[in-house]
Amino acid sequence: MNLLLRSYWRSSCSWRVRIGLGLKGLAYEYRAVNLLSGDQDRPDHRARSPFGHVPVLEIEEGGRTLVLIESVAILEYLDERFRDPPFLPSDLEGRARVRALAEHVNSAIQPMQNTSCRKFLETRQHGLGLDFARHWNQLGLAALETALQDGKAGRFCHGDAPGLADLYLVPQLNAARRLEVDLAPYPTLLRIEEACSALPAFQAAHASRQPDAPPEARAS
Amino acid sequence: MNLLLRSYWRSSCSWRVRIGLGLKGLAYEYRAVNLLSGDQDRPDHRARSPFGHVPVLEIEEGGRTLVLIESVAILEYLDERFRDPPFLPSDLEGRARVRALAEHVNSAIQPMQNTSCRKFLETRQHGLGLDFARHWNQLGLAALETALQDGKAGRFCHGDAPGLADLYLVPQLNAARRLEVDLAPYPTLLRIEEACSALPAFQAAHASRQPDAPPEARAS
Repeated sequence: MNLLLRSYWRSSCSWRVRIGLGLKGLAYEYRAVNLLSGDQDRPDHRARSPFGHVPVLEIEEGGRTLVLIESVAILEYLDERFRDPPFLPSDLEGRARVRALAEHVNSAIQPMQNTSCRKFLETRQHGLGLDFARHWNQLGLAALETALQDGKAGRFCHGDAPGLADLYLVPQLNAARRLEVDLAPYPTLLRIEEACSALPAFQAAHASRQPDAPPEARAS
Repeated sequence: MNLLLRSYWRSSCSWRVRIGLGLKGLAYEYRAVNLLSGDQDRPDHRARSPFGHVPVLEIEEGGRTLVLIESVAILEYLDERFRDPPFLPSDLEGRARVRALAEHVNSAIQPMQNTSCRKFLETRQHGLGLDFARHWNQLGLAALETALQDGKAGRFCHGDAPGLADLYLVPQLNAARRLEVDLAPYPTLLRIEEACSALPAFQAAHASRQPDAPPEARAS
């Protein structure tokens, strides 16, 4: 089995899957898709992802290549196929809690900041793309901070082991910093991010450590 | 076991879960959350959904109430607990395909049209909320139409039984119509919608049949 990940260094959706692959101990070849030069709209990329998104995970085995798209779908696949360590808790209630936290980042924060969304809004009013992205980051992260006060977070979003919600949280906080969103009001999110940052899978997945990160963004 | 669904008649996220409950044959009490009068921001609702979203599914059993939020998380819970009929195919590859289709609606189309997003944009430029919602519906539905040309759709998005992707598609097409998006370029989506519309679970979940639908929107 050979894995190939088509990714953009700074894309939070790619980043989630990089962490997930790392946690499962799966090695992969890295192939950059430059979102700023429009690689995602080229016919070869669209043939893999009709939505023009990254990441794309290709699994080559038994003479064929399976092409997986969309971060939740990819991560659920990895979790169903490679069980250890699990991304989701074993109890149904816990699974629903973790999926809801991840979904909140995936559908209520990230879409509002993505490159194509910001581009569209900037053509209509200068600065609006940035304001819009900041607005939803602030509201969304505040709601996430509140959601984590339910007594079920531990060192990580759910108990004391990293899981699906953490994979969504860490890249999102990085995006918020790029938008200059003040993160001080979210101590729980920052505490969990710190716990994640101590883990090799999170370290290796960091944007600054990807081959397509420009020199000025590279980790030393 | 008693189920209570907090829902808004026209909310596509509520609608998905109503279809899901119907397919699983689960009866529930309906409680309206009026998004136009701001019920979603009231403290009692925020205590259930820190994100201020609908739907919320409450499952009362054994002397306690489990509160489930966010549509994907709720539907995955229902599918893990009540197996028949399944929302997802049994093979890993099929599951990833169906989840990716649902995720595309959930994260790349619906967030761009929701009430709070449109409100924010309208305060900045008159008509922008509507333009923005239409733009992402057009791009998103076109991509979905393309994605469904992979030979794996049947009468429904995946084969000949309704599943998770159909639960996302049907309310999305209704939202697109309200936005006056031309659906003629998406014959596959329309064909699948028609197949869905023949099923009682889809009929009962329709916005026009909900107790909080205003008289002029009511199904006769």
